[in-house]
Amino acid sequence: MSGNRFFIAPDVFANTEIIFPREISRQIHSVLRLKAGDLVTVLDNEGHCRQVEIREVDARQVIGSAGEIFPAPGEPGVELTLCPALTQREKFEWILQKGTELGVRHFVPIITGRSLIQETGGWNEKIIRWQKIVREAAEQCGRGLVPEISTPLKLADYLNRDERPRGYILHEREQHAGLADSVMRHLSTGNRQIALLVGPEGGFTEDEAGQANSAGLVSVSLGARILRMETAAMAACVICMVVAGELGSFSVAVRS
Amino acid sequence: MSGNRFFIAPDVFANTEIIFPREISRQIHSVLRLKAGDLVTVLDNEGHCRQVEIREVDARQVIGSAGEIFPAPGEPGVELTLCPALTQREKFEWILQKGTELGVRHFVPIITGRSLIQETGGWNEKIIRWQKIVREAAEQCGRGLVPEISTPLKLADYLNRDERPRGYILHEREQHAGLADSVMRHLSTGNRQIALLVGPEGGFTEDEAGQANSAGLVSVSLGARILRMETAAMAACVICMVVAGELGSFSVAVRS
Repeated sequence: MSGNRFFIAPDVFANTEIIFPREISRQIHSVLRLKAGDLVTVLDNEGHCRQVEIREVDARQVIGSAGEIFPAPGEPGVELTLCPALTQREKFEWILQKGTELGVRHFVPIITGRSLIQETGGWNEKIIRWQKIVREAAEQCGRGLVPEISTPLKLADYLNRDERPRGYILHEREQHAGLADSVMRHLSTGNRQIALLVGPEGGFTEDEAGQANSAGLVSVSLGARILRMETAAMAACVICMVVAGELGSFSVAVRS
Repeated sequence: MSGNRFFIAPDVFANTEIIFPREISRQIHSVLRLKAGDLVTVLDNEGHCRQVEIREVDARQVIGSAGEIFPAPGEPGVELTLCPALTQREKFEWILQKGTELGVRHFVPIITGRSLIQETGGWNEKIIRWQKIVREAAEQCGRGLVPEISTPLKLADYLNRDERPRGYILHEREQHAGLADSVMRHLSTGNRQIALLVGPEGGFTEDEAGQANSAGLVSVSLGARILRMETAAMAACVICMVVAGELGSFSVAVRS
């Protein structure tokens, strides 16, 4: 499949003649400078992909002919929910971009006692911006689905959710349990859903860690050095994915 | 030991009365706003640390009394050399910062056919800037040593070096060998030195990968998704460190 990938709405995807929406048309014409005859891949964000041969290129509208429908590749076999504390814009957007590349399926921004951002409303505009970041990252790295982003939640509200995957809270006071070992045991039970809670700069308070533990989240350590929040979030995602065999083969990876 | 750590020159470190250099004095006075009686940790970048009680604080000169000399904690048991292709400034500096947190011991910037930066001279000013970045990251995360940064080298010159650790080249064409498995075998031989070569956006050319393989570097994959250069560099560091048991306990970690 071609390296240029675009997520488009399922109704557009369903036609043999694909009329690309304006934003993607502009990108194909002005940024990528593709020509008639070039191939791109379209995905419907419901798990399917098709190769499209471009027929007409215009800054406002690109038209192409789509081939057969295939299952979209690129989704990890692990459903990872990353819950990072809200922090300054660049750092947070960077976590969204890197997390998407590393295979995160759901992002749940959380508001904790020490989170740099404490607002509890007015998220619509931010979420639209965040969605654009994860869509572009998903297109670039070859994901089959665009990760979902929840409205930011207070930690207590996240913990009170009826449906949430079993998971781990990165806590510097934890001295023993390592994330890799815990994830290995987790996956060996056949459970493919994992949640990871990553605190803000300054970490979770003891009280917050206690609440999370009471709600079933296991405290884990990332070792002796003090990682910045974004480094810790990414390292935790890498650890989950490598243990699951999703970042190159891993002989002790547990397959369900 | 106190959370505020500073690397100072060994000759200053050797005295019981520590007269902090100007830049650190300014930081203690104006940024951290520490007072007489507060404790900081000093390191000599030769593997030792001491706790220092601040006696006099001035923007130009801070004076403190140092206690006993201890071995500095915080250095991983693996000596990781990260060789990232030169790329745009922010991305490269980010790799230096995160690599330091994750435990990289030596950075060797390399110039490859597709590197965004191709200059081969005038590095002095850049290296001074880079050294400041890794020193601050090492202070913040609790390393015992400041990572070393080599002058940038052409890939061929790196491969021709007499002394270089056994290592791995991240290559997208590699389909089978995973980095984690390879590092596990590597460490099981008792060899604690590892080099990681990370190509620029666009990757290594086939020719470059071939040269690296001929020079004994093993091609490894980071899985099915296409990671940006900086994501791949960090994921590779995380994988080496978690396998070595340096990012939280890891039950299959190989200890020499």
